[in-house]
Amino acid sequence: MFYKFFKKKSPATLGHRARTIENSFTADLAAELLVAPTALMRLTLEDARVVVHYMQPHRIDEGATFIKEGDTRDTAFMILILDGEVTVETIVVSRTEPVTITVLGRGSLVGEMGLLDGEPRSASCTASSPVSCAILSRQALEELMQENPLVAAKLMLAVALRIAARLRDNADKLKMYVQLTQVMQQEIGHRAPG
Amino acid sequence: MFYKFFKKKSPATLGHRARTIENSFTADLAAELLVAPTALMRLTLEDARVVVHYMQPHRIDEGATFIKEGDTRDTAFMILILDGEVTVETIVVSRTEPVTITVLGRGSLVGEMGLLDGEPRSASCTASSPVSCAILSRQALEELMQENPLVAAKLMLAVALRIAARLRDNADKLKMYVQLTQVMQQEIGHRAPG
Repeated sequence: MFYKFFKKKSPATLGHRARTIENSFTADLAAELLVAPTALMRLTLEDARVVVHYMQPHRIDEGATFIKEGDTRDTAFMILILDGEVTVETIVVSRTEPVTITVLGRGSLVGEMGLLDGEPRSASCTASSPVSCAILSRQALEELMQENPLVAAKLMLAVALRIAARLRDNADKLKMYVQLTQVMQQEIGHRAPG
Repeated sequence: MFYKFFKKKSPATLGHRARTIENSFTADLAAELLVAPTALMRLTLEDARVVVHYMQPHRIDEGATFIKEGDTRDTAFMILILDGEVTVETIVVSRTEPVTITVLGRGSLVGEMGLLDGEPRSASCTASSPVSCAILSRQALEELMQENPLVAAKLMLAVALRIAARLRDNADKLKMYVQLTQVMQQEIGHRAPG
């Protein structure tokens, strides 16, 4: 679904400058947001400017679901939100309506796990307003690794940190649910007929 | 608790060779295990040999709890298990005995989140047999980033991938628990007195 959001590949002979965010205001904003606490704060602004050079600007219409849960195609990219709001939802089998996990705004990253593993999307993302964003594809990441390996290493460290923070948060929630089900199990046991 | 497992820092003038795993059999094993499916399979063996150069060999006695849940000191390292078994446990408030999360063996990584964020340990690790391992400290990682940035970038990508895989697994479990508690809630509702 998302492939249409990618610009046509520029010929290799043009070099990577062809991929860059040309509008310098957008590039500056993207670099500043990459180092903000919500995105990848361990990068320096200088590092972030190098990363932005490998990103593509993009606009998403309000209401467009640009990442679909379970999607297996074209998943190898991440998005930095420059402006607008994105609703992240997941489907829980027992409910008819999807469950909203979070709402993301300026400076948030979306889909960074897909950038790494290209696995099916774990949630759906819908633009709840017009969204302006910058995209880093896996291919651009590979080029960054070859051309600016130290910046790539710092970027990967920062992305890994973000995912680790989500994992710690998730593990805490899981522990809470384990306890909750134990309490509920006891409740059900106490009330069992006979 | 773990600081005692680290060798005394070698003088900076000795350079990083002083930190290396000197026994070549151990070094070969460590490199092979780093690229195995259980550790960081996206590294090449050549990359892994470079990483191993920055690791320290270590032995852990059977029964020693070498990582303690909640520990905030000396958490910035990860361990590659070369031989032996490690039991990973967590404390659930409602139980008196800790819950075993998993048992890890040769080729497994332990504590890779600590390497990244230095946050309190999320689980305890006990050697259930004598364990031979190789340690990568945060300081060694920083040196690897400066001296071999491309290998560091690949290592960080591989570590991020591993954490992403754990997060996806964890998110699936969390979804299952959300459904389970919904079903149990209904069960309790149905049986409510009156």
